[in-house]
Formats: sequence, structure tokens, C-alpha cells
Amino acid sequence: MAIEASQDNSARRRLRLGMVGGGRGAFIGAVHRIAARLDDDYELVAGAFSSEAARARASAQDLGIALDRAYDSYEAMAQAEAARSDGIEVVSIVTPNHLHAPIARAFLNAGIHVICDKPLTTTSGEAEDLVALVRETGCVFAVTHNYSGYPMIRQARAMVAEGELGTLRVIQAEYPQDWLTERLEDSGNKQAEWRTDPARSGAGGCLGDIGTHAYHLACFVTGLQPEALSAQLTTFVEGRRLDDDVQIMLRFKGGARGLLWASQVAVGNENGLKLRVYGTKGGLEWAQTDPNSLWFTAFGQPKQLFTRRGAGAWPQADRVSRIPPGHPEGYLEGFATIYSEAARAIRAVQSGEMIDAEVMYPTIEDGLAGVRFIEAAVASSRDDSRWVTIP
Amino acid sequence: MAIEASQDNSARRRLRLGMVGGGRGAFIGAVHRIAARLDDDYELVAGAFSSEAARARASAQDLGIALDRAYDSYEAMAQAEAARSDGIEVVSIVTPNHLHAPIARAFLNAGIHVICDKPLTTTSGEAEDLVALVRETGCVFAVTHNYSGYPMIRQARAMVAEGELGTLRVIQAEYPQDWLTERLEDSGNKQAEWRTDPARSGAGGCLGDIGTHAYHLACFVTGLQPEALSAQLTTFVEGRRLDDDVQIMLRFKGGARGLLWASQVAVGNENGLKLRVYGTKGGLEWAQTDPNSLWFTAFGQPKQLFTRRGAGAWPQADRVSRIPPGHPEGYLEGFATIYSEAARAIRAVQSGEMIDAEVMYPTIEDGLAGVRFIEAAVASSRDDSRWVTIP
Amino acid sequence: MAIEASQDNSARRRLRLGMVGGGRGAFIGAVHRIAARLDDDYELVAGAFSSEAARARASAQDLGIALDRAYDSYEAMAQAEAARSDGIEVVSIVTPNHLHAPIARAFLNAGIHVICDKPLTTTSGEAEDLVALVRETGCVFAVTHNYSGYPMIRQARAMVAEGELGTLRVIQAEYPQDWLTERLEDSGNKQAEWRTDPARSGAGGCLGDIGTHAYHLACFVTGLQPEALSAQLTTFVEGRRLDDDVQIMLRFKGGARGLLWASQVAVGNENGLKLRVYGTKGGLEWAQTDPNSLWFTAFGQPKQLFTRRGAGAWPQADRVSRIPPGHPEGYLEGFATIYSEAARAIRAVQSGEMIDAEVMYPTIEDGLAGVRFIEAAVASSRDDSRWVTIP
Amino acid sequence: MAIEASQDNSARRRLRLGMVGGGRGAFIGAVHRIAARLDDDYELVAGAFSSEAARARASAQDLGIALDRAYDSYEAMAQAEAARSDGIEVVSIVTPNHLHAPIARAFLNAGIHVICDKPLTTTSGEAEDLVALVRETGCVFAVTHNYSGYPMIRQARAMVAEGELGTLRVIQAEYPQDWLTERLEDSGNKQAEWRTDPARSGAGGCLGDIGTHAYHLACFVTGLQPEALSAQLTTFVEGRRLDDDVQIMLRFKGGARGLLWASQVAVGNENGLKLRVYGTKGGLEWAQTDPNSLWFTAFGQPKQLFTRRGAGAWPQADRVSRIPPGHPEGYLEGFATIYSEAARAIRAVQSGEMIDAEVMYPTIEDGLAGVRFIEAAVASSRDDSRWVTIP
Repeated sequence: MAIEASQDNSARRRLRLGMVGGGRGAFIGAVHRIAARLDDDYELVAGAFSSEAARARASAQDLGIALDRAYDSYEAMAQAEAARSDGIEVVSIVTPNHLHAPIARAFLNAGIHVICDKPLTTTSGEAEDLVALVRETGCVFAVTHNYSGYPMIRQARAMVAEGELGTLRVIQAEYPQDWLTERLEDSGNKQAEWRTDPARSGAGGCLGDIGTHAYHLACFVTGLQPEALSAQLTTFVEGRRLDDDVQIMLRFKGGARGLLWASQVAVGNENGLKLRVYGTKGGLEWAQTDPNSLWFTAFGQPKQLFTRRGAGAWPQADRVSRIPPGHPEGYLEGFATIYSEAARAIRAVQSGEMIDAEVMYPTIEDGLAGVRFIEAAVASSRDDSRWVTIP
Repeated sequence: MAIEASQDNSARRRLRLGMVGGGRGAFIGAVHRIAARLDDDYELVAGAFSSEAARARASAQDLGIALDRAYDSYEAMAQAEAARSDGIEVVSIVTPNHLHAPIARAFLNAGIHVICDKPLTTTSGEAEDLVALVRETGCVFAVTHNYSGYPMIRQARAMVAEGELGTLRVIQAEYPQDWLTERLEDSGNKQAEWRTDPARSGAGGCLGDIGTHAYHLACFVTGLQPEALSAQLTTFVEGRRLDDDVQIMLRFKGGARGLLWASQVAVGNENGLKLRVYGTKGGLEWAQTDPNSLWFTAFGQPKQLFTRRGAGAWPQADRVSRIPPGHPEGYLEGFATIYSEAARAIRAVQSGEMIDAEVMYPTIEDGLAGVRFIEAAVASSRDDSRWVTIP
Repeated sequence: MAIEASQDNSARRRLRLGMVGGGRGAFIGAVHRIAARLDDDYELVAGAFSSEAARARASAQDLGIALDRAYDSYEAMAQAEAARSDGIEVVSIVTPNHLHAPIARAFLNAGIHVICDKPLTTTSGEAEDLVALVRETGCVFAVTHNYSGYPMIRQARAMVAEGELGTLRVIQAEYPQDWLTERLEDSGNKQAEWRTDPARSGAGGCLGDIGTHAYHLACFVTGLQPEALSAQLTTFVEGRRLDDDVQIMLRFKGGARGLLWASQVAVGNENGLKLRVYGTKGGLEWAQTDPNSLWFTAFGQPKQLFTRRGAGAWPQADRVSRIPPGHPEGYLEGFATIYSEAARAIRAVQSGEMIDAEVMYPTIEDGLAGVRFIEAAVASSRDDSRWVTIP
Repeated sequence: MAIEASQDNSARRRLRLGMVGGGRGAFIGAVHRIAARLDDDYELVAGAFSSEAARARASAQDLGIALDRAYDSYEAMAQAEAARSDGIEVVSIVTPNHLHAPIARAFLNAGIHVICDKPLTTTSGEAEDLVALVRETGCVFAVTHNYSGYPMIRQARAMVAEGELGTLRVIQAEYPQDWLTERLEDSGNKQAEWRTDPARSGAGGCLGDIGTHAYHLACFVTGLQPEALSAQLTTFVEGRRLDDDVQIMLRFKGGARGLLWASQVAVGNENGLKLRVYGTKGGLEWAQTDPNSLWFTAFGQPKQLFTRRGAGAWPQADRVSRIPPGHPEGYLEGFATIYSEAARAIRAVQSGEMIDAEVMYPTIEDGLAGVRFIEAAVASSRDDSRWVTIP
């Protein structure tokens, strides 16, 4: 077996990482912690894992965090860590959506870099304020639209950018799930509870949770921004307060057209994220169920299967790969790539260097675009699917 | 190998079949002829294969048709055949769309049953007139929305009807192709010429050619009729006179929502017809690339793969199967099922019996629904994707 | 939809066809009849569908055969048909294996061409005698190793022959089924009864029924003949008299090595015929579950998907295709190609012309090779998997 | 997205880990380091990354290892670390095969637990000695047959053990690659060099490198040991000194039969490990290209798709899963599970507790079985594929 690991970055000093949210009973935090660990770029040293003191402390203990760095308030944490000579350099925010903005502000104001879950905020006003604050502080701010970290997605983006598809025409993005087919939010499932609660999730349910992922991926790969959308959001499960199915028509700058479908009631789908892009010269297809494969057809030629690090794979995919072709890399590796690239950016900022152009983690601007997408879709759907311009 | 052919119907007398269109240089005619032959229900004995006399004659000769039954005018053919004691009992109409209506009228008026390609007509007015004429004459009229003949589509329809999916929520239909990615209509390709010509195709390009197939399939399987649609039709290839990409949002009676995408510029897709249906209790997925498979998920259970005549297959699929599981049946077999069922219906009418409830070829009403779908989509697209009610 | 049917051969006079076997209660006969009909090359006009007079007559009636041409003895049929001016020109033999040889002899001696199911005979001695008789009579003799009729198999053979794979190294053939997982032969299933009966099937069970198909396919595609084999045949189901699982190592002329696996007890497999071929320059993969696809990898390049009549498909595949890419052709179409090619050969013989080099139906020599394969595998397995030379 | 990470084990103190081999220019070491890190069970604190002093030091620096714990001799390392109060508790051996035994002895003799790459040794004598030493010292000894760490492989094993397949009959294991299609060992590729060198690899080339993986997986899932095998090993690439293709027939205790194919010249295959198991009641299929899926067919029922943590998944799969269904876990996660389970065993030994029955990393005995398999296959192949008993 010919193993060549491109990302054994252990030589670099680990960045000191804190986390807000992600304590006992919460779950996305664990994914962020594995992602942070995988390429050995970070060491978790502090956390406000919960706003309940006892749970915050217990969670810190679980995670081997020194108790003097286990906080039950993010404000206290930002202040205390900023004051330490060995204070955290970067914080991961893994709370429900409505808390992203105030927490991010606290750490940015303390000069601490931020990695934040998505959607960025619950209103575009908050998001715009954050954009301004990030620019002002010069901090790195990564939003974990993690699917953009998959190697073959990087190749897809590069192929589009290099003109392999010609002028783009049709973009099909979809993200079906089925976990909210029934009224899970009434069963005590914490994830379902806050994700269907407008006060914590914002105006989008399925739209914000996974629709924004599909949207980001489509924009990331194509390099295009939609100008307008026409949406029908539906709440199929009785009594649910947010949409659980999202159907959107898109018009992109330059004339491309697209459909975006996201659903949390499509029985038989787990996390069926899929992207298809068609242009004048070629077409691309990718699905998360088989993330190491990228299908490409040059018009008039047989379809080709590019595989992660396989024959003919592009360097943009190789760069974010760890193991040889045929050995599947998955979700955690793609997520880890976002963390690794954020680390590269943070180190560059710390040393006053330019951030390498290869680094392409989703930024605060991507986060803002996601929030604007949510607002436009909600507005369109409320107005009988009228076309709404995306700022 | 355990072969059990359920459709070796050779015992029954063959129906005398005529054909209009489908001569030398035309091609869908050959598919109809194979379909007619496959289950031995028909014998082709007459034809107006072309309106040019020389070509009509040559085509008849190619096909072994007696020259006195080779016509160069459908009017002459309808009249002459109606007058013969051994005249045709049924005619296949395989011309460009704009000729379907006058030809069908001529044969119906002569008391001859009709099998007609789709879309039925170029205007709903013509289609409504045909519906009235069919009812008046009592003739069988089948429209070759052939995909409804696939065995696993029959099972899908039965599973929905039996409530295996619960109340339907989301319906995703798509039919991407890529053969019109470039301006093929300028290269002398006859198929491309008339299919992109409004005078011969009607108001829909891709919409009429394959969008109607996806639409019919969605309605056939779900048993639902859409109430309204919002469409964006696009012509991507410069100079083309009809749409080559179709994106439609659908609202069904009962609250289900759907997306329909059809394209003739999606590079890498040959005939990618696919249907997915999701309800409160289960989900179904089917694709023409693997037509002998039907994926079903009961919510909370592992996904199941039903195969044509395989373990657990439903009788509705078995009935229209010819060979054992694992030996693929394909497009021609599904097409032949429409012909076989039309033959059963014609024989029933001839003998004054009821048509068996198992017979479910697409009818004149399905043809009319397709034309109304085209008109609604065109109207919506012209009016900025406004929701348009489907009559 | 751009339909171009390459095989609408209706212009040619139909050959007069007879059938032995395939009456009521038998089933492979129906497949042969559809295959004969599909390309309009044959008309079934006579038959000895059963050796029981009543059943023979009833079967003929089912099939619309004139009663004076319904026989209950193949000897009588051969004699009577040979004496008629409108007698059959070719006979299909679809009986259990042990009857192939005497029936074939009777018709060959009457100067009638033969299409015969496989395996050719139950002993190689009989098969060799038939080879001699075919050469003596000059009759066409086709053996229905029907899988060689699939278009992408034709392309595979051409790609190997043209050197696209370089020198061949490894050949993997498999054909798993599961229909004999339990003792079906005791349940009244006729197919299971004779296929597990050495008196009617010969020395091979699974080996003869499907192992020979996999073997023929491997030889057909690679153009190689094995020199020797080492086999372990197993009878898993208690009381069964013939093997139901076959595992064979192969050594080919020129140094290639192969494995052949066939099974009738592999639960979850319907008709899982699959072939993989690897050489110094490239590799090919094909499976009956997706017969319109052929995967090809040139070493150091991304894998390519060739599809029937799709972009880049080879003419050898196009020639035996009927409909456009993306519309699946299946088992019956491949089977029909064998019939069509036999018809071309018969017509050539009748008119004293050379048989077209494109015609490549399996011949009597292929049939003999299959019987020798069975005998070698049985001998090896009985002798502790010793390597046995294949004549 | 409902994320529940079951393996965020950060609470436990990290075990102090050393590594032998895996320095600059070597690659499997990086995989072991990621695997060790992923579940936060280990901290790498010492290493003899190379026997060249300069490279050993540079590698240590790359990896952030204190220079006083960077060794250029494993003997020195074993001695020094054993003497430190903060010495390593466990060592990973990631050198070419011929060094596994002496290195393992050194650390076992120093009372240090071992995680060792495969095949365990180059002779069964060495392997047997190691087994004895492990028993004597009471140390944990894990062999990284990492594929047994995939969640769906754990479910497969459990399903077999629970009788879901009934009595096993047929086992098909394969592992095709293509990276040695040409003479890569002459091009300066270190991996190819030592893997084709009998002095460093032992008697098996492809056989030892990946054949043993397929063999271990087949035994792990079925719970069966083969009694005898018949092998043909081939060296296709001229001048190569070890086999590059392996074809083996297997006889298992209890009557099951199997085929094992491994190849490094099968063009178009990257790491195509695949296992299929068939019994009297059901069948299972799994492939590394889609490792989160397990196909199961109960005889007479439709095929079912079990997915990692999906509906109906078994607890044995859930236990070694980290993220929700539909988000692919891959090779590194499976590898990490072996490391995590070794950590659980080491902690149990350290605290004098029983090792949890859920822990099922491959042991020294599995390693010995692999070496015996190599020796038996080589002996059989040399003796014209004679059946050789496996001790």
C-alpha cells in the first residue's frame, strides 16, 4: 500500500483552542474537537461548554481541561483568556445559531480568532456587523461550511475555474434528510428542539440547517453568486414552527439557472448532499455518499471518474488529501481541512505573512451570504414564490 | 435459470396494424414497430410512412408491406383501410407533434383505434376535441408515455396506492439529457430540427419532448394531479427557438410539493429519467438507468431493494414482466407493455367486454393533461414564474 | 429524443422457424420465441413442443401454429418439414440438455439449420460428432450463449482485440444466483428438477447451467482459450445430485490467469454475471445488472464509462444496438442479436455468399468448448482439484 | 443535523506512545499517527523514526518530539524509555516486515505494549515466538488489520455470529489494486522497493501486503478458520521477485468454500477490498469503496441496505461510529478504532481489569494466522496448487 500523507503537520506548534458550547448532551462540539485534532494543529485548553456551571465543569473534566479554564460564561472566558499569556488564540463557537453573534463579538473584541458553526447569525444585520468587526480586528473568522473541505469538491471548483465546463448553464443542488419526518422535537431530542425553534434557529428551519450548506457548496464550486431566487418553503409536520422542506429556483449572474432542494422529511435519505453542474463544454456530478469520487463528462466524450488522489486527480484535491486513493476519506477529514486551513491563516496573520491562496476555508463573507440567502428565501416564499433579489 | 415468460401471448390473433410516419430517415417508428412485435399482438400491414410518394413506397418495401397498402397520404389510408374487409384495426401515429391531431381525427372518424406518440397535440383545444371524439367513437386511444410500462413503475404506483408511503409530501422528477448541448438542429439532424421548431413541436421544446414524460410519470406513480406550477424555461443555446431546460415547482392536490427538472443541455446525461416520492411513512426512488430496481424505505427501517420479479416483488410488476429477475428488461419491453395493454383493450372493445382493470396504458386524458402542463409552464415562465393553475 | 434503430430489418423475408421443446409448462422456449421475433427475422411455423401428443397440440394452438405442423416427435417433424416445399429452414432446440444431440442430428441430417440452447450436449463425444456433422452438412449451427450478444460485450471484445488492454494478465468471471439455495427440485419446479438431474443435465449442475455461460463470455471477450483448470465443485444442498457451487482457477494460453465462480446458492444474487479483464495497459469491467455500461481504465488515467451508443462507443457495440443511449437494452435484445446474426448467416449460406465477419454468434465449436470445460472441471474436482488440461 | 459522537473519549488520560519507523520519506507512520490522535487516546512522545541518526532527529523535530526522546536505534529506545518514569507505555511498529519481530521483542521484553503493522513477521517461527512472549509478558499486542475496524464489518461479524446467515457456505474475498502494474520498484518509489523485496517483505508480495488483509477480514467476519488452501501465485511484471497476483481456493472448517483474489496489477482498482458471505439463510456484501453500507439479503426477501448508524443498524456498528448516518466515515476512522480498542485493552491491563468483550482489535494470534496463511499459499503454489493444510 502506497501511503503518502500530505497533511502530517505535526511539526507546527499547536494553536491554543477554546470552545463555547459543545458540553455534555450537546453533540456538534465533538465533531469540531475531532476535526481540530485530526491534523494536530490545535490543542483544546479552555471552554465554556455550557451556561450551567455544573455541566460546564463536568464537561471540562471529561475533556481534560484544567478547571481554572472551564467557564460557564463566554464573556468571562473571553476576558480571562485574553488576559492570560497562554490564553487561547482561537475559539470554536458551537452553540445554537442565535448565540453565534454575541459570542463571536466578545472574542473578536478580545482579539481572538474565531471558528463558528453555521448559519452565521439569525439576521443579516448581525452578520453585517460581524463582517465589519472582523475587518476592523483583522482576526481570522472561519464558518464551518465543512463540505467545501472535501478533496473532490476542491477539484470540482478548480475544474470550473479552469474552464473545463465552459460557461455554466445549469446547477442542481440538493440536500435531503429524513430525520424530522416525524415530530422528533417533542420527544426530548435536543437537536430537533432547537433546530425547529425560531428563537434559536432563526427564520429558517431545514433552510438554515442544511439548505445553507447546499447553497454554499453550489456557490463555492461554481464561483457564481445567485442574483435572485423563487422559493416555496413548506412545513409538512403539523405543529412544527419552521420549514422542513425547501424548493428553490435560482438565477445566477451570467445566466446560469439552478434548482435547490433541501428536505428533512424525505424518507430514506440520511445526508444526501449532492451537486451537479453543467456548462457549455462539460458536466460535473458529486455526492456526499461517495465523496471520494467526482464524475466529469466532456461533451462528446465518455464520462470519467476522478477519484481522490487517483490517476489524473488535480493537485487541488491532492493538497487536502491524507491517504492514498481507494481508501475512503470522509466527513471528519473534510471538516478537519477547514480547521487546518484556518490554522494556516491564523499562523499567517500571527507572523504577518500573506495567507496562502490555497487556503479556502469559508469566510465571514460566506457566512453573511448564507444569512442573506435564508432571508431572501423566506421573503419569496411568504410572497407566493415571487422572485427576490439576493443582495 | 428459471424462466417464466408471462407475456407469450402468441395464441391470440394478431391485430392488423397500420402506421403513419416512421419511414426511411425517421426513427421513432422503428421503436414502435419493435414494441408492437415483441409480444406478438400486432401485424403491421399498411402504412403512410411518408408524404413523399417515393419514400413512402420505398419504406413500405423495406418493411414488407404490400404496395397496395402503402399510402402517401393519411387521409387516403384511413379511407381505403376502412373500406377493406381486412383493413387495419389500429394505427400508430409517429409523426412530428403538429400532425398528431389531424391524423388521429381521420382514423378515429374511420372507426380505427389509435396509438399516438406524445405530446398528444400542440394545443389543448385540439386535445380537448380529440378527447370528445374518442368518447364519441368509443375507440381505444393510447398515448405512448412509455415509461409507465416499466414493471417497477407499476409496483411503485401500487405501493403508493396501497398506502405504503402514507400521505405524500415531496415528489422529485427529473429527466436530463445532453444531446442538444450544441446547435445540432443546424447540422442536418432531423430529430433535432423538428424538435426545436415551434411549428412542428408546439410551444414546448425540452418541455414537450421529455418534460411531459417526467410529468406523466410523476402523476402516474403518485395518482396525484398538480393544481399549480411555477416555471422557469430557458433557452441556453443561442438561436434556438424553443426551451432546452425546464425548472418547475409544483403544488399537488392534497398538499404535496414537487420539483421537476428536464434538460437537453446537461452534459453527461443520456436519458436520465428519475423519480423520487416521499410520504409520511415511506419513500421510493427509481431511475431509468437501472429500471429493474425500485428502492423503498419504510421510515425507521433499512432501505429495501425491490427488483423486477425478485423476492418480494409485487404482482403489479410481475404481470408486465417477461423474464426472470436479474436478467434486465429495458426500454423496448416497457414500450411493448403499452402496446400489449392497448391490444388487450382493443380486443375487449371488439368483443364488447369490459377492459381489464389491470390494463393501464396512458389514455387520451393523460395526453390532454400533458398538453395542459405544457401550456401552463409556458404561461408561467413568460410571466416571471408566476404560479399558474393547471385546469 | 434521437432514436436511430439500427436493426429494423423487416425488409428481409422472414425465415421459416420450427421449435423443439418449449411447450406449455416449459419456459425457455418463450425467450427464444421473443428473441426470434424481436428483429423480425423469423416466423415460427412448426413445432414439436412436447413429446406428449395432447400437450404438443395445445401448445401449437397457443402459438398459432397450423395443426398439421404440430408434431409430437422431432423425428417426424424433421422428416415432414424437410419434405414440404414451405418447410422450416431452421429449428430452435430448447429441450433439456440430454436431448440436444439426437434432435440436432435429425435436423442437420435433413439439411435444416439449427439454433440450440446450451450446454451443447452431455458428453464431448456427442459434441465432437455434431461438429463433424455440421461441417459435413454445411448448416449454420448457433449455440445460445446469449450474453455474447450484449453490445458492450462486443465492444469489450473489440477493445481487447485492438490491444487497448495490452497483454492480458488476469481474468475474473463470476455468475452467482440464489434460486437453488433450498431444495427447489423437490417442490415440483420443473426447471429445478431437470437441472439437478444428471440424466437430463449431464455431469454439471451449476457448472453446466451457468458456469458454461461465464466461461464462454470470458473466452469470447478475451479471445483466449484456457489451457488448464483446477476446480472445486460443491453440492451444498443435501440430497442434490449435482454441484450447486463452482470455484475454478484457470490458466490461459499466453500466461493469463483467472478465477471463475458460479453459484446457485449465493443468497441475494439473481443473475449476477460479471466479467473483469486486466492487461498490461488497461482494465475492463462489465456486469449484467448494468449491461449498457462498460468500464475501462487505461493505466494511469481516470476510469471511463462507455455506454451503449453513448459518446465514444465503438462501432462493434453500435452495430448490435437498436435504440439511443440511456434507454436500457436488456437480456432479450442481446438474445435477439444471436438470432439476428444466425439469420444473417443462414441467408448467406442460402445465397452462397460469405458470412459477414461482423457476425459472431456462438458456434458449434463454442458449444464443444463448453462441454470440454464441464468435463475438465468435473475431472479436476474429483481428483482433489488437480490441474486438468483442457483439450 | 443530529450529531452524536460516541467516541469523544477525551476524558481519559492519553497513553504515552512511541513509534519505530515512520520518519521522513516513510508514509504508513503518518496514518498510524492520525489514527492514534483521532480519538484522543494517545500522545506521541518518543520515536526511533529512522536508523539514520540525522533523519531520525529531523523526523522527531517535524513531529514535535523532544530531542532527548528521538532515538536512532530501537534497542536504545526500548531501554531508555523503560527506564523513564514518564516512559512510553506503548509503541507503534511501522517498519518493513522483516524488522517487526526483533523490534517487538525488544519492547515486549521492556514491558511495553505493542501495536504492530502487518504481516506480523516474515516467518511463522518468529511469529510463534512472539505469541509466546506476549503471553509471558502479559502485554497487549495489536496487529493493524485495520479493515476490521470498519463499523459495518463489525455488524457483519455480529450478524454471522447471531445466525442471520444460517450455516455458511460460500465466502468470496478480494483485494485488487493496480499500483504495481508497471515496475514501480525501479523508479525510486520506497514503498514499491521494499514491498517487492523478499528480504524485507518475506515470502509474500501481494500475498503478504494485501492478501493477508483479505484473509483476516474473511476470518474476522465469518468467525471461521480455513483448514486448507490451493493457491496459484503469479509474478506478472518481469523481473519482479515476489508475486503480484494471488488466486486461492479455500476450504473452511464446517464445509464452507471460498475464493480469495488479491492483485496489484488489476488496472483500474485502487484499494478494492470486498467481502461477500453466503449461508443457508442469508447473504452479506461489503466493499471498502462504500464502507458505510452493508448489504444483507434474507433468502426470499428483498435485499436490505444497512448503513452505519442508520435505521436498523446493529449496536456493534454503532459502538465504533463517531458521526451520524449519511456522513461517511472512512479508512482513518476504522484504523483509529483499532487504536482506541488497543487503548481500552492497555488501560484494562494497567488497572488489572478484564478487557471488555466489545474490544476486538486483531491480536498476536491473528498476526500468526496471517503468517501461516502466507506460508501455506507459497507452499501450495510452488507445488502446482496442491491443497495445503493451514495449521
